[in-house]
Parts: sequence; C-alpha cells; structure tokens
Amino acid sequence: METRVCRLYGAKDLRVETETAQPPGPGEVLVRVGAGGICGSDLHYYQDGGFGPIRVREPIILGHEAAGTVEVVGDGVAAVRAGDLVALNPSRPCGACRFCLGGQQQHCLTMRFFGSAMRRPHEQGAFRDLIVVSEGQCVPVGAGISAGEAACAEPLSVALHAVRRAGSLSGRRVLVTGSGPIGALCIAAARHAGALEVVATDPHAAALKTAAAMGAAKTVNVPNETLEAYEADKGWFDVAFECSAAASALHAAFQVTRPGGTIVQVGVTGGLPIPANLLVGKEINLVGSHRFHEEFAVATRLISERRIDVRPLISNRFPLEEALTAFETAGDRSRAMKVQLSFAGAD
Amino acid sequence: METRVCRLYGAKDLRVETETAQPPGPGEVLVRVGAGGICGSDLHYYQDGGFGPIRVREPIILGHEAAGTVEVVGDGVAAVRAGDLVALNPSRPCGACRFCLGGQQQHCLTMRFFGSAMRRPHEQGAFRDLIVVSEGQCVPVGAGISAGEAACAEPLSVALHAVRRAGSLSGRRVLVTGSGPIGALCIAAARHAGALEVVATDPHAAALKTAAAMGAAKTVNVPNETLEAYEADKGWFDVAFECSAAASALHAAFQVTRPGGTIVQVGVTGGLPIPANLLVGKEINLVGSHRFHEEFAVATRLISERRIDVRPLISNRFPLEEALTAFETAGDRSRAMKVQLSFAGAD
Amino acid sequence: METRVCRLYGAKDLRVETETAQPPGPGEVLVRVGAGGICGSDLHYYQDGGFGPIRVREPIILGHEAAGTVEVVGDGVAAVRAGDLVALNPSRPCGACRFCLGGQQQHCLTMRFFGSAMRRPHEQGAFRDLIVVSEGQCVPVGAGISAGEAACAEPLSVALHAVRRAGSLSGRRVLVTGSGPIGALCIAAARHAGALEVVATDPHAAALKTAAAMGAAKTVNVPNETLEAYEADKGWFDVAFECSAAASALHAAFQVTRPGGTIVQVGVTGGLPIPANLLVGKEINLVGSHRFHEEFAVATRLISERRIDVRPLISNRFPLEEALTAFETAGDRSRAMKVQLSFAGAD
Amino acid sequence: METRVCRLYGAKDLRVETETAQPPGPGEVLVRVGAGGICGSDLHYYQDGGFGPIRVREPIILGHEAAGTVEVVGDGVAAVRAGDLVALNPSRPCGACRFCLGGQQQHCLTMRFFGSAMRRPHEQGAFRDLIVVSEGQCVPVGAGISAGEAACAEPLSVALHAVRRAGSLSGRRVLVTGSGPIGALCIAAARHAGALEVVATDPHAAALKTAAAMGAAKTVNVPNETLEAYEADKGWFDVAFECSAAASALHAAFQVTRPGGTIVQVGVTGGLPIPANLLVGKEINLVGSHRFHEEFAVATRLISERRIDVRPLISNRFPLEEALTAFETAGDRSRAMKVQLSFAGAD
Repeated sequence: METRVCRLYGAKDLRVETETAQPPGPGEVLVRVGAGGICGSDLHYYQDGGFGPIRVREPIILGHEAAGTVEVVGDGVAAVRAGDLVALNPSRPCGACRFCLGGQQQHCLTMRFFGSAMRRPHEQGAFRDLIVVSEGQCVPVGAGISAGEAACAEPLSVALHAVRRAGSLSGRRVLVTGSGPIGALCIAAARHAGALEVVATDPHAAALKTAAAMGAAKTVNVPNETLEAYEADKGWFDVAFECSAAASALHAAFQVTRPGGTIVQVGVTGGLPIPANLLVGKEINLVGSHRFHEEFAVATRLISERRIDVRPLISNRFPLEEALTAFETAGDRSRAMKVQLSFAGAD
Repeated sequence: METRVCRLYGAKDLRVETETAQPPGPGEVLVRVGAGGICGSDLHYYQDGGFGPIRVREPIILGHEAAGTVEVVGDGVAAVRAGDLVALNPSRPCGACRFCLGGQQQHCLTMRFFGSAMRRPHEQGAFRDLIVVSEGQCVPVGAGISAGEAACAEPLSVALHAVRRAGSLSGRRVLVTGSGPIGALCIAAARHAGALEVVATDPHAAALKTAAAMGAAKTVNVPNETLEAYEADKGWFDVAFECSAAASALHAAFQVTRPGGTIVQVGVTGGLPIPANLLVGKEINLVGSHRFHEEFAVATRLISERRIDVRPLISNRFPLEEALTAFETAGDRSRAMKVQLSFAGAD
Repeated sequence: METRVCRLYGAKDLRVETETAQPPGPGEVLVRVGAGGICGSDLHYYQDGGFGPIRVREPIILGHEAAGTVEVVGDGVAAVRAGDLVALNPSRPCGACRFCLGGQQQHCLTMRFFGSAMRRPHEQGAFRDLIVVSEGQCVPVGAGISAGEAACAEPLSVALHAVRRAGSLSGRRVLVTGSGPIGALCIAAARHAGALEVVATDPHAAALKTAAAMGAAKTVNVPNETLEAYEADKGWFDVAFECSAAASALHAAFQVTRPGGTIVQVGVTGGLPIPANLLVGKEINLVGSHRFHEEFAVATRLISERRIDVRPLISNRFPLEEALTAFETAGDRSRAMKVQLSFAGAD
Repeated sequence: METRVCRLYGAKDLRVETETAQPPGPGEVLVRVGAGGICGSDLHYYQDGGFGPIRVREPIILGHEAAGTVEVVGDGVAAVRAGDLVALNPSRPCGACRFCLGGQQQHCLTMRFFGSAMRRPHEQGAFRDLIVVSEGQCVPVGAGISAGEAACAEPLSVALHAVRRAGSLSGRRVLVTGSGPIGALCIAAARHAGALEVVATDPHAAALKTAAAMGAAKTVNVPNETLEAYEADKGWFDVAFECSAAASALHAAFQVTRPGGTIVQVGVTGGLPIPANLLVGKEINLVGSHRFHEEFAVATRLISERRIDVRPLISNRFPLEEALTAFETAGDRSRAMKVQLSFAGAD
C-alpha cells in the first residue's frame, strides 16, 4: 500500500513524499492516520532545524500527536481490531534500563519517541497516511470522538503529567503562564484535578479566549496587564505551571507564588534566569516536567468521555498536501492554537 | 552594666562602642555572650552595605550566630538559670500570621531576626558582651561544649533545614557544591541523615580539607577538577546541596543529578541562570531552603552530644576589639572557614 | 431575643427549650440559623449518650453542621453584614498550641468544636434559632444557594480533608466503602479532585442511588455483591476511602487496594481488626483523617458555585419542633441520607 | 561437587542431606556459603510448617540471609571473581511485570525469593555449602568483614526499607516496639538516618541489651515498664517501627505517636486489632513495609564500612550439622538474637 509521508530535510525544507507502507508484523498494527497535531518541537525542527543541542541531522518524518483507524492487525494482536479509532502513544521506552525499572519510563536511556531527532538514527514520526505501530501504542477511543480530538491525547498527557508533578491540586490556587496549547491543557487538567481557581496569562488575546474556554477563571493579558495584585503577603498562588519558557513569565511566577509553593516548569528552553533570592527566600519548589508515561491512557479516557473537552483547543486543520501552510499557521501564535494535519484516514 | 557592641554604620564602617545594657524584663534573660560567628550576610553588610534589595539604612549591631552564659534571669523564667551556657536562637516569628499558623514560621510576615536589615527598624544583633533575649530563645547546651561550638547551632540549623527540604537521604548519594561553612555543615548534616556518600566541591583547598573533616568521602577542587565523571547515564547524585550561589556550580549540579533528583539551593544571590532544558528534561526538583525553625533545638542537641562535631569548622577566633581583622579574615575564603568573635563571656 | 435550643440531657432525652439569646460582642455575629444537619456523632450522642470514651456528662446543645443568616454584627465586624447567608465553621482551634503553630489545627490541644462532648464543659452546638459566633466562623455563601446546601459545608470539609490525606487523585482509581453522607461526599470530592473512576459500596440500595448521583461510576451492594473482581493482580484501586467503620469493609478494602496504595480511614469506631499480612505484604498506607481546617472555606466555595452539588444528599428536612422524628429518621439508614433540621431562619 | 543442604520436610522435620551441586551456567556464580542467618520466617516454617496462608507443601531448603565466597564464575560474569566474599541477595523479581516496571520490585507478581514457600514450586534457599546464584545476586563485601556480618545484609535491607517508608528521620523521635533482630536493625538504621533519639521496647532483657548496643538511647522492658510517660499532649514520637506483631505493642505505639505521625508495621501476623479512634483522631499513618529492593546494595556497603556494626546482633553460631540445635535456640527469644548457621565456606 502506498502512503504519503511528511518529511523534513532541514530547516524550512519540508516535503510530502510517497512511499510504500510495510504490513504489520506480529504484535503490530497498521493504522490509517486521521489527524496529527503540530507541536512546538515540530515547529522548532521546521523553523530552525532543531532546538538547543537537538538538531535534525538526517531526514525525519515529524509528528507525535496522532490518532487514526486500525487498518490491519498483525498476528497475536488482541487489544484492538480493524476499524477501531485509536490514539497513538508516541513513546516506546525500552523496559529494561534502570529508569524503566524505577517507574521513570520517561527518562529511559534509549527512549524511542515518534518524530524525535534527539538520538540517531532519528525516530520517524506519525505525519503519514499509514503507520505501523506496536499493539501497546494503540489506545482505543470512545464512540463519537473525532480523530482530531483523539490526537490531543498526547499533549493532554503532557499536561496531566505536569499536574501530577505538582502534587494534589484539590482546593489550590493555580497560575498558568503561557496559554498556548500546552498551557491551555494545563488549565483544563488543573481544573479537572480540583484546582479552586486558575488564572492564565498570555500576550495574545486569542490564546486567552481559549484559556477561558478551557477553564481559566481569570485571564491576564501580559505585559499590558500584570500579576502584581497577586504579590501581596508573599504570594497568592499555591502552584504555577510555567508553559511559556519566557524569563519574564517565570520571574512573575516567582513573585506571586506563596512560600513553600511549587512552580512546574513545562515550557522548554536553554538557559533561563531565575530570581534565586525568591527561590531561596520563599522556599519555592521549581520542578521540571517531561513528557508522560501512564498518563497517556488516562488522557485518552478523559477525552473519550469528554471529561476534558479539547475541542476549543483545535484552531486549524489542513490536509497533508497543505503541510507548509499548516506549519506557517502554527507558527503564528496570534492566530493559531492547535493546528492539525488531516490524512487519508480523516473523519 | 556596661556592654560593648559591634555596630555597623555602613559599608566598611564598623565600630565597637560601649553602652549600657538593660536588665531583663519578665520572661527575659540577660546573657553574657561568649562567642559569635561571622556569617556571609554579616560579611555582605560589612563589605557592601547589604546584598540585593536588603541594605543597611541605619546603624545595626550585627551577629546572629551566638552563644553565651546566662547572667540574670527575669521574672517567671524557668527554663534556664544563671550560669547555663545557652545557644541563642536569633529567630523570633510573630506566632500569629498565616505562615506561623501554617507551620512555616521561617516565612513569618513580621519576622524579627537578629542582626537583620531586611525590615525597618533593623533588628539589632548579638555581637555584644551582654544581650537581653526572651527565654524561648535560650537553648541550654551540654557539659563540656564551648561557647564557640554552641554558636554554630545557628548555621547547623540552616544545614539541617536544607537536609529536611531534600526528603529522606538514607542511602542516597549527595553532592555539595561550595564548601564554605554552610556547605561544610550540609556535608555533616547529610552524613548524619544517612547519606551513603557525599562529594564536595570548592575552589579552595583549605575548604576542601574541612569538607573532608566534616564527612565528605571525596572532594573536587573546581575548576581544576570537574564533576564530569558523574554525568554518565543522566547523572549520579540523588541530591545536591548548592551552597556557593555560583552559576557554574549550579549548572554542574544539574549535569550530575539524576532524573527526578533534587537540588536544594542554599546559597543566596540575585539572578542565577539555570539550564532549563535539564530542569525539564530530567525533571529535576530545584528547591530553595531558607533559615530554619524547629531545627534549632535539634542542632543544639547534636552539637551538645557531639553527634555532629563542629570543631573542624571553626578556623579563627578574634576578641571583639579586633572585629575589623575578624571581618577582613572572614572575607578571605582561601584562609578562613568560620571566623568567630569572642566576648566578655568567652570560655 | 428568644431562641429555641435543641438540648440533649442524655441518651434519648432530647428537649426543645426556649431561652434568651445574648447579643453579639465585639468581633462577634448573631446568626439566625436556617438549617442544621444531623451528623453521625449527633446520632451517637442521642442514641447511646456518646461513643467510645466520649460521653455526654452534662446537658449539651447538639449540632455542628449549620448555616444561617446574619442578624446583627458586633463592633468591629467587617467580613459579613446583616442579611448575608453564611456557613458556620464549628471549629475554633486555640491558635497558640504546638499543633496550631504546626499547621495541624484539627489537633489543637484545647479545640472548641460545636456540639462536642469531648471536653468539659461541653461545647454547645448550633441546633438553635439564634447563635452568637465569632466573625471568623462565618463564611459567606453565594447567591441562589439554600441554607440547607450551605449547612453541608461542614461534612464536605471532612470529605475534602480526607481527599487531601490521600495525595493527588488525578487519574487514580478510587473505592469508597460506606455510602452514607460522608461516603457520598467523599465520592463527590474524589471526582472533583480528578479521580478517574469511583466505585462505591453500601448495604442500602437508597444510599447507592445517592452515591451514583454524587458521582460513583459503579455501585456495589454489599454483602449481596462483592468486590472480588477487583482483587486480581494484588488489587485494582489506588486509593480507598473507608467511611463505614465496618471491619468487613476495611478488610475488603485491603484486598482490592494495590501494593503501595492508600486507604483513608474516615469512619470512626473503637477497635477494628486489620489484615496485618496485607498491610505489610502490600505495603498499604492506612491513614486516618480527622475533621478539617482550611478546607471549610474551600467547601463553602465549591457549594456556592455548585461545583459540588450537595442537593442529592439532603434526604429529609424537619422543623425544630419535630427534632425527635428527625433523629429517629436519621437513624434509619435504609431511608435517610442527610437529615436536616430547619429553624427560624429557614429559607 | 558435593554439597550438604538443610531441607525442611514439614514442621519439626528438618534434615541435613547431601547431594551434588551443579556448576554455574552463563551469568551464574557458584558460591561457597559461609554463614546463613535464621530468620523469623525460617523459624515459622520449622515450628509450624508455615505462617498464615503460606504453608510448606513440598520439601524446601530454607535460608535467605546468606553470604559466602565465590568458588567458580560462569561465562560472562564480570562483576565478581573467585575468592570474593559476597552477600547474597535472595530476591529475584521478574523485571517485566507492572510492579517491576513501576519501581516496586518487592511486589513482583512472580517474585522468586530464596527459601520461600509462598508460591509453588517453592523457591529453594541458601542453607547449603554450595549454591548457584545469578551474578546480579552477588554483592561484594569489603575487606575485614566476616561472612556472618555479610549475611546480615538481608535483614538490614529490611530495616533500611522500613526506614525509607517512614520518610525523613532527620531530627525525629523514634520508637521501636519489639527488639528482636529486625527491631534491633531498625534501631541502627533509624540512628543512621539521623533519628534524634530512639526508644526501644521488648519483654526480654537480653534483647534490650542488644537494642542499647545497636543505638537505642532508652529501653523499656514491657510489660513491666510502660510507655505511658510518652502519651502526654497526644504523643511524643514522630515515628514508630512496630516489629513485634503484638497487638499490645501496636496499641501502645498508637498511644504515644503524635498526631500526623507514622507507624511503620514491620512485624507480620494475621489479624491485628487497631485502635481506629486513635488512627482517625490523631491522623496516624500506619504503613506496611515489605522486604526491600535497592536497599540490599546499600546494606552491604554499610556493613562493609561498619557504618552500621551488626556484630552485637549475632548471638549464636552453629555448624550446619547442629541445625536442629540452631533452630531450637533461635526459637528462644530470652537467649538468642540472630542465630546463624556456618557452612563449608565459613571464616
């Protein structure tokens, strides 16, 4: 069977090519992809050829937020069958290294993750009509849910993992700085975890509108508006999710987080200055959050039952042949939130 | 009674003056100070007139690491009596604000702390022959312990609090970056809390010698030697105590701390760049540690029983009249570790 | 002003009496009570004259789940004004003992708690038309909420505190054994805190119907039905809330909670046998949960915004003059969930 | 090569038999056993043919506390070589089940543990002259340490794991109820983890003498002496390790543990009554502790460096041919603490 693939050869050199899809082997599943979301890392690969020390050094099929319909199951596959809509877990930890055996699969020493240039050979991703995955990567999705929604299971997993890093949010006051797709999902995940109130910031009005739709009780349009009112008595918020990777946002989070509170750093960048006097003086816990593991099944279920409704998040959808337009649109945060590609298996 | 006091009028303007000591009121105790350690913050006040936003704005008696002998007890005092050697707890939280009622006394909104220019009027400190304190600030010290050792209860409290911020250290591998007095006490406190091994860094050979005496299994003379060998497989250490406030040390700590590990920031400075990609990618917990509360009684007891022997730490002792020499010596980290002043009550 | 009070003189000896209400002093508020819920402890006092070592040794006005309308405010009161509907926090920790200063106000050494016979003199409770409370005990309730709903702030606080004792519930599988009022509120609180699924047990069909209305995904009518299916592979549930104080329920919870999981004991009784081999072999965390502190404000807000809708819980309402009928009804778990008394201030 | 084995055929039916030892396969090691400690479970097998639901259903070689000298290494073995003294880790989790992949290897669904009758076929143990183990089970021991000390690595691992279950002990007050071998090692492990003071109980004077030697600051000879003095103000101890499996000891632990404190249940038995009113009213955390995983390497190192000196614990040593006397002696708690068998490889 033929499949189109969306392959990056270097910065701004993205090509849609046609090749032959392999049949699934034992324990494998051939999936007809329906939707694939463009993530910030895809965008960095496209715009800059990588980020930080991670560079595209060989052609790579991008895409790690995908869902589709089971086309053919290989021998021994029991968990899914042809016709099932499944969210695709892009993460394949080795299951044998000390991190895998310590319940920290996201830190697997030989992690294979869809569309990642971190290791060589690069892991090929899911922006293609047909893809062969292992059975365990397929998580069935409930009836009435679109492939586009299901493709949000991956970024929602990231948000759920970030929430878990914060400890219990029941009755807590939460700040989310940066209301892009991950920030917006952190808002929803924090609300779902019992946050008493969520305040969200972003420089873009459109993003804040989505933030409100995803559950923010109040939005702050930085830098026009400030968080200064929350600084009184050493800080208002119990927990902040920093999703912008902007120094100004992290600094503001330190100002408004209460002593002993937690800032979960979700947004990634290289060097970032922190106000060490506040970190120390207020005994802030600044904790990183990286990907997810068991959260993927939870995310798929929350989307399947619409206990977290991701539809307000999906701002644009382009067929694969318009991939360049899709990537350019995704790069314009004043207009776009989650931009998705649709493929042969689209609903 | 007359008392000499060591009062700072501004950067480099330190004067020993004589004035009249007040008698103790009800619930108060007049203490004849024996020894007082010069802390990094005393040094900053002396050298620069303050640090960060905290400035000496009016004359201030420095000193918050002190111990002495009870001279006179006020009405109603029961816990101590004349002749007792006591460590002086420099911390007086209000006991009524939301932080005090939340078990976070170190974040008291109206904290009064010996020799601190943080609030106005400044809190006067303990570098004087005679001082009146409240009964609750006096913690009796065991027999055979010197006032100099007892005066280390305060910095040891800081180290014990830092250790508590790290969670259980039983069987853990620990790094301490910066082996000044606080770093050296973190080494001892980590060992006391069951750390399997402690590696310590410092640019000064003398500091590393003390580090070894306080319990470091291995010392690394940065930048001549590096921690690179500990970077393999995402990092060797479970916990790091960053006591140098140097960006290079913090960066190295991020490199050698394992995924999910904790870096306790103890050293204070203003802005400090962090490798956000490692914070996030390795899910490091960077947690600030600020002063202490219940740890003061524990520290005094550990010193009293010599379960932590602080004597290797005390490098120099000067009588009050040589305060200037003492401060200059304390500023030379290649020679000095903990420099103490001795007073009228010295043993 | 005259007020009726519902006073217990001993087991089964409950009398409605009339006396004079005092005016509010400075910082106090006179509240016209609207609704007051009968709690299990009220019932034990009524049925048995106490429970365990706690006995009614002098006449006591019962009731600690109450809400009403501010009638008169004393000097200096600023937080509420006449006409406000307020939930009444029955808890008055001293604010000065070591538990209060450790953020453990629920363990205050001299706690004063409405309608409690734990200490002497007994604390008088809120089953009366008019009551004087301190300003801090009044938490304003949102518009459109009934006094009956607001009176559920107290038991909801108990449930929120129990949830907090369990740590993060985001994505967790939860069992609730015993679906009386507290169990039902634990279901709602667990769902609000992000529990993936909640299974509830009870011997009474009516209770299970309420459990489902409060958010249980599945109900199990013990002992006719069992939890055996959840025992496979060492247990299905991450967290259990044991609200029945029945040995059989606790035993079942041990069987179906996974290794390393947590059982929060909410129901109180005297001696209770536990399967120590499972506690040890599965490393279960069996943790007690007692009352609440900061959760009261959260509970009032969640009810005010109907983020937790307590209306399915309120099964019966009787005017004060029918107090005996109310108590007898509350004692029949096959018919009643939360039984409330209504007073002069009822809506 | 011939080897003697100590095999149990049923209660009181223990036989020393001779058979042929197999050579080590690839990745395996043939060890000449030096010492093997008799544990409480060995004793239960011998005395009663099992404990609780675990019964000896087929002949079983007992023994899971052993150390010896490497005799022959199989192909590919690199970590040890002939002549090395090694402590033998009796635990072989599967490395593939959900518990192994969650960092909870001690809960492995198909755990193989030396000398355990939990599953069928029973796992054969280490009470024999020669044993073949996998390379990973051999942990080299430092110079100057006896096989007898090294054989204590297993019970010390149990104690270290129990300590880890308690969270940080730095500066904490600790109670140990039951000062048999595991209790005594909990005392040492708690002290090593920074416990401020450890109080130990036991009905036997000899055990308390060992308890003191292992680090208890105070011993209480129950029931002649009581812990009543520690009940004031809701309890003195932060943490209790309950190592006796006696209801009276657990009850006492509840009485003297402070609100919010933790009781680690280490001793195993069937049903055990708990004072549920104290569990709830004081919000005690009663947590089970089961075996160990990563603690084995730590234990071996602590013994190797004599940071925990286990020699006071070893009360008796019998050559294998006197196994019956050894078991009878081990059963007499008034005389014996840790009874060990010595084998062909004994030092």
